[in-house]
Amino acid sequence: MRTPHGQVETPTFMPVGTRGTVKGLTPRDLRETGAGLVLGNTYHLYLRPGVDVIRGAGGLHAFTGWNGPMLTDSGGYQVFSLSKIRKLSEEGVEFASVYDGSSHFFTPELTTRAQEDLGADIAMVLDECPPADASREYHAESLRRTARWARRCKEAHTRQDQALFGIVQGGLFGDLRSESLERTLEIGFSGYAVGGLSVGEPGEKMLDVLSKVSPELPSEKPRYFMGIGDPVGILEVISLGVDMFDCVLPTRLARHGSALTAEGRINLKNARYRTDFGPLDPECSCEACAGYSRAYLSHLCRENELLGHRLITLHNVTFVSELCRMARENIKAGSYEKWVRAWIGRYEGRIASGTE
Amino acid sequence: MRTPHGQVETPTFMPVGTRGTVKGLTPRDLRETGAGLVLGNTYHLYLRPGVDVIRGAGGLHAFTGWNGPMLTDSGGYQVFSLSKIRKLSEEGVEFASVYDGSSHFFTPELTTRAQEDLGADIAMVLDECPPADASREYHAESLRRTARWARRCKEAHTRQDQALFGIVQGGLFGDLRSESLERTLEIGFSGYAVGGLSVGEPGEKMLDVLSKVSPELPSEKPRYFMGIGDPVGILEVISLGVDMFDCVLPTRLARHGSALTAEGRINLKNARYRTDFGPLDPECSCEACAGYSRAYLSHLCRENELLGHRLITLHNVTFVSELCRMARENIKAGSYEKWVRAWIGRYEGRIASGTE
Repeated sequence: MRTPHGQVETPTFMPVGTRGTVKGLTPRDLRETGAGLVLGNTYHLYLRPGVDVIRGAGGLHAFTGWNGPMLTDSGGYQVFSLSKIRKLSEEGVEFASVYDGSSHFFTPELTTRAQEDLGADIAMVLDECPPADASREYHAESLRRTARWARRCKEAHTRQDQALFGIVQGGLFGDLRSESLERTLEIGFSGYAVGGLSVGEPGEKMLDVLSKVSPELPSEKPRYFMGIGDPVGILEVISLGVDMFDCVLPTRLARHGSALTAEGRINLKNARYRTDFGPLDPECSCEACAGYSRAYLSHLCRENELLGHRLITLHNVTFVSELCRMARENIKAGSYEKWVRAWIGRYEGRIASGTE
Repeated sequence: MRTPHGQVETPTFMPVGTRGTVKGLTPRDLRETGAGLVLGNTYHLYLRPGVDVIRGAGGLHAFTGWNGPMLTDSGGYQVFSLSKIRKLSEEGVEFASVYDGSSHFFTPELTTRAQEDLGADIAMVLDECPPADASREYHAESLRRTARWARRCKEAHTRQDQALFGIVQGGLFGDLRSESLERTLEIGFSGYAVGGLSVGEPGEKMLDVLSKVSPELPSEKPRYFMGIGDPVGILEVISLGVDMFDCVLPTRLARHGSALTAEGRINLKNARYRTDFGPLDPECSCEACAGYSRAYLSHLCRENELLGHRLITLHNVTFVSELCRMARENIKAGSYEKWVRAWIGRYEGRIASGTE
């Protein structure tokens, strides 16, 4: 995938830079993790520090110092998951800021304009993200409104150097997903995302829906699955043809002292790591694994030290990026399914054997 | 000053690595700040993760990855400032851990042994740090006990590759300082610290006492002034012949969004920095100043983002290290007093002119 800020090899994991920073990491660190694309959250950036500030800096690239490829979401997901909705209408959605309760009104035109000001390489349409357990009627009504919003986004979008992606919704209803897909394809976008599937649905149903939607997405356009970041889930959605995915999981886990390793997820606060002088993940060459012991990282995590958050975040993002690199290699070599079975067996086997 | 982990140019500021980490910085970052010596706190490390763990790792250098010169304090200051004292006796001091209230008993022999296990290049004797406003009688009794403890520390100290420094106490009483000095010199140490002067005393009295003690300290041994880290204070104690000093100020300020600059201290949370797209300190070449704007750093600090703490910490430590480098240069050139007057004028002028 080519972007104005460089080429991205897919499939690729996008670390989430919620407030214009991937928790504790500098752009230099992010380069070292091997991350291709970085995601910025329009909801947060719109509220803090404000799009005017970022535009004044020359855009999100200049503001944050990350000069690689970047994607911004539209803020739809955060509006519906973080905020109290004051009024949802055809025109847009009025919500209360998660920061101070102040009222804001997002329309497709506003979020498109905001994303043009942020200036990421890829922008997203404004969508409604209904709760997974909303009724069929609600999902049907919602996906049609999302499609109308998507059309307005496309009409409002003016930057030639920025791609705009559509989003397929429809909950867990196969026929509604098909309808959403059809309506979104009809408008026509540079890439397509599948939304609303990682908001608490059981994994199997999610994969079932994705397995029906994914093959219908045009193979020459990037396919973006929104909100997955656990290693096994990543490998499963790659199997279904997904090119891009994002999730706060690797960075959020890190701040709780949980590290991803080839032999499963480990919680560094566990007593056993207190005197474990081996590297965090012997197969990883990131700064955290090369320079420190599990015992030291365990100490930092137990004491809630900034350096612990920073180093484990660096490792977890590196781990997921490296997983994607191995996936790409095995896809090229035609050995993906075989490799995945072995990889997951080892990763989950270690969990099952009770070491975590 | 030569140490087993390298040479240190003096005067030098020691950033404080309280719990085996200088808040948010890696050893590589610390190298980049130009810091010569790093200080570790025996009190904290003894309680968390425990000296056994650090000994198991091969010492504090191996545990933390910092392979440059290091000094550990004895824990005396923290025992008397952070902990509830359960019992102070000739033998030692029983105190309640600041972490969990558990009881611990520090003796000169124990803190010396602990510091040998930590393995820093320089260890300190166990001293009592009475409150500044303690009575003359109390200070007299205390300094004599501290001197007896110092002798026991020296007798307990066995590592040939580790220097042991004595500490002069005596509060603000000139004659008691002289007595403490005499008693400490009589025992004989590789270096001498002046303690108990930065625990809330007014600056002038502190400098007055220091100006009497400092010339009496042997000029061929390092002189360490405990607990100063504001730029003006640093320059003043250097004028009085001090070689080493430490303070949490530069790192603590950073976590509150305050940055040291050549034109004074600025609080990045102030509204005026929200859209200030210039560098943090145009005269500094650290990563924070070279790569980011005040507006971005202000955003990070307002949002309490880890990266903000990390970058401002990096800058503040760099700033104080650079100040020491300039001081050394001007001392060599014979222009110290002239340079200091100009430097302080600019630094304080900016504050007085109301920009802070």
